[in-house]
Amino acid sequence: MINYDDIFNTAQDAFLHFKKTSGKIKANFLRQIASNIEAEKDKLIPLASDESNLPEGRITGELGRTVGQIKLFAQIVEEGSWLEAVIDHADPERTPAPKPDLRRFLTAIGPVVVFGASNFPLAFSTAGGDTISALAAGCPVIYKGHPAHPKTSLLVGSLISKAVQESGLPSGLFTHIEGGIDVGQELVKHPIAKAIAFTGSFKGGKAIFDLANQRTEPIPVYAEMGSVNPIITLENKLGSDIEGLAKSFASSLTLGAGQFCTNPGLIMVPQVHEKTFSDAVKKEIQEIAAAPMLHEGIAKAYYESLDKLKSKEELEWLHVSATTDLIKAHPALAKIKAIDWLRDDLFQEEVFGSFAIMVVYEGAEELLSIAQKLHGQLTITIWGEDSELEQSAELITILEEKCGRILFKGVPTGVEVGFAMQHGGPFPSTSDSRSTSVGAYAIKRFARPIAFQDMPEKFLPDALKESNPLEIWRTVDGEFKK
Amino acid sequence: MINYDDIFNTAQDAFLHFKKTSGKIKANFLRQIASNIEAEKDKLIPLASDESNLPEGRITGELGRTVGQIKLFAQIVEEGSWLEAVIDHADPERTPAPKPDLRRFLTAIGPVVVFGASNFPLAFSTAGGDTISALAAGCPVIYKGHPAHPKTSLLVGSLISKAVQESGLPSGLFTHIEGGIDVGQELVKHPIAKAIAFTGSFKGGKAIFDLANQRTEPIPVYAEMGSVNPIITLENKLGSDIEGLAKSFASSLTLGAGQFCTNPGLIMVPQVHEKTFSDAVKKEIQEIAAAPMLHEGIAKAYYESLDKLKSKEELEWLHVSATTDLIKAHPALAKIKAIDWLRDDLFQEEVFGSFAIMVVYEGAEELLSIAQKLHGQLTITIWGEDSELEQSAELITILEEKCGRILFKGVPTGVEVGFAMQHGGPFPSTSDSRSTSVGAYAIKRFARPIAFQDMPEKFLPDALKESNPLEIWRTVDGEFKK
Repeated sequence: MINYDDIFNTAQDAFLHFKKTSGKIKANFLRQIASNIEAEKDKLIPLASDESNLPEGRITGELGRTVGQIKLFAQIVEEGSWLEAVIDHADPERTPAPKPDLRRFLTAIGPVVVFGASNFPLAFSTAGGDTISALAAGCPVIYKGHPAHPKTSLLVGSLISKAVQESGLPSGLFTHIEGGIDVGQELVKHPIAKAIAFTGSFKGGKAIFDLANQRTEPIPVYAEMGSVNPIITLENKLGSDIEGLAKSFASSLTLGAGQFCTNPGLIMVPQVHEKTFSDAVKKEIQEIAAAPMLHEGIAKAYYESLDKLKSKEELEWLHVSATTDLIKAHPALAKIKAIDWLRDDLFQEEVFGSFAIMVVYEGAEELLSIAQKLHGQLTITIWGEDSELEQSAELITILEEKCGRILFKGVPTGVEVGFAMQHGGPFPSTSDSRSTSVGAYAIKRFARPIAFQDMPEKFLPDALKESNPLEIWRTVDGEFKK
Repeated sequence: MINYDDIFNTAQDAFLHFKKTSGKIKANFLRQIASNIEAEKDKLIPLASDESNLPEGRITGELGRTVGQIKLFAQIVEEGSWLEAVIDHADPERTPAPKPDLRRFLTAIGPVVVFGASNFPLAFSTAGGDTISALAAGCPVIYKGHPAHPKTSLLVGSLISKAVQESGLPSGLFTHIEGGIDVGQELVKHPIAKAIAFTGSFKGGKAIFDLANQRTEPIPVYAEMGSVNPIITLENKLGSDIEGLAKSFASSLTLGAGQFCTNPGLIMVPQVHEKTFSDAVKKEIQEIAAAPMLHEGIAKAYYESLDKLKSKEELEWLHVSATTDLIKAHPALAKIKAIDWLRDDLFQEEVFGSFAIMVVYEGAEELLSIAQKLHGQLTITIWGEDSELEQSAELITILEEKCGRILFKGVPTGVEVGFAMQHGGPFPSTSDSRSTSVGAYAIKRFARPIAFQDMPEKFLPDALKESNPLEIWRTVDGEFKK
């Protein structure tokens, strides 16, 4: 029996202490997590690889990314300017009423419930971006381990708890919980929970979003629910490098058996190049071996989605395996006319795996109609010559409305962890387009502003003290300064 | 018949143009609105006063505040750093994969539906903080006029539309609509609406919040739903100036007939001073004449709320008028023991008007229990000597969790419009504690981040161009610079 009240009360106690902990101590704590993970990598890598069917090379890279991510947040909280400190000085002489002293900064929002992703057993799971950015903000985390990699999750969880202890912080700062949907629901509903982070399917994310909004006190839900990440190809650019672009597309499509939230599941191709481009893609795909998916349930869902689409007469199958597989994903590619694609939303539903629909369009006007019809996406990519982009101003304006990140080169897979990353787009790709789950700004999800009016200097948090002891960037009487 | 599709399609067309409009043009447009309002003030002030029952002096002040607010947002968009521009430069030499060029900033979220407040016919209505911050962010506004001041709303609406025209901007930028709850619902449900701003009752705000979350595409709702704004008095401080503090409290309580969202409807008083303080408050209240409320419906609701409370035996009525009034609010004050207050949430429900409950507490421990029981508030005020505050660290920590602004001097009414203001607290005081509806940061509610990956320099928005033509503060490769 899980005692939810115990878990959340302990988290809340930890929170009231931790939210006031200095950036320096928080940074050291985060670095301790990173170093605990690195110390166990010889055990972690084979374990995560075994549980996820992802090759050790990929998991090694993911571990590096996880550690890098932790260090980025350590750097951010140590530096401190993320707190958005703002000071408006008093003016006792102002008429008709004196002006008070007002100081504002971001404070941690409270205990956060995190649901990890199956497709990133490290970087978006137990010590992944959501957990680490919540801890960095000053929030305790109640983490529900993903059943697809239970041992990896437990091990990483123990490394976080070890870091909590080594840093002399309260144990309620991190709790690892195992369980099914019912357990997840109890976590979302608990009155002490103050925010939710989730990475996974639309169905799962939307259910959590709805549940959180039905609470007596609704709370923010940051659900990253996937996307088909359209690639739009313009005639001249595609014509100038059909084979190269086909290769880029095919390798992005099949990377990690297509199990990325930024996997390109939709590509718009001008009719004039349709045949040569699809031939080139087919050639690439044929050379890529079917790769095992994360688990049988995901492989089953992949083939079921394909079966559903196979009943659609509008689709012409350019490449599809005759047999399904219990675990491996055979890449697949289907083609559709723009006019047919426009008629049915089913053709832009995500199929998790290495499948894409190629939409053949006839001209700029049809492309505009496609853009207008697109649902919210994490990413949209447009491949065009400069002169073509110049003539596509209206198209680009509409595409910007449909995504969180727009690419003009390369492929959407491979999400940079940095300051400028935006990994979060309009609904249904995420439940909150105002946030990112990757990169420096992910920390902002777990904070809210608070203002202190006429608080005596000695009680003010360091970030707001007159002397600026943290030496952070602040807005003072409307001016940015250090 | 209102043609909602027409209204929203026109707004969307305006949006696609306006979101790319320069800060300079937006600033001039906002200043044009301000100057149109100032030009009509001799007409506006008596009209708003007549429709709201608020004295002309108060409306004159509110007009000044409205204009000041508009000029603040003009200054913010003209300066431009609010866009949070972030640049991570490419590194083509990086291994194993080259690093792309990534640039991120805030872009306008889309057409916004604004519901004005009855208690601020100017500053939180047609050209109030919500409308102006949405326009400043680059969003068209569909404004539903408040039925309590229809002529004022229409006149201000026409002044905004005039400014749109004078600035050569598309007319869909601002639409004024009149109607009841059904009209409001249609506006919230329209698929083109991308955010809602609301100021009013909990019931109204929560209904809008729920409706917006039930849409196929849920959208952000910024509902400011009121608060009881507790004042906590500590023994020594209160004892040192009983009459002065009673005067401050009574005047804040009765200001504008108590019709402020920051009106203090709850005050915690230590038992030792209970008698002298309540006598002093009574004396003050008796000298304050009953003032007309905004309209009869509000006066009726005020007296009905009092009647409901009168059935509660735990309350002792210190001051209450024998007769009710069709329009005027007679101030009222009731007293309750902390132990009784703790047992029933009814005693912290907002009564809109000049009524407060005085909670008599016995010591620090009881005060802590009260703090823990408090719902989310816009503001909490604590009056204590430095030495008392020093001993109240735990109390203050808990109070911070319950509000958006905490005051150590003065009264919660009188909300500064500046950079450091936070007017938005935990639920149920607002639907989104991460936002403020007053002050510079209100603009952030109507924007979302977007990242441009490898966008050719010439297509980049000015805010993200390498040469920084706007001369704004940006984060470049992790460093703040201009």
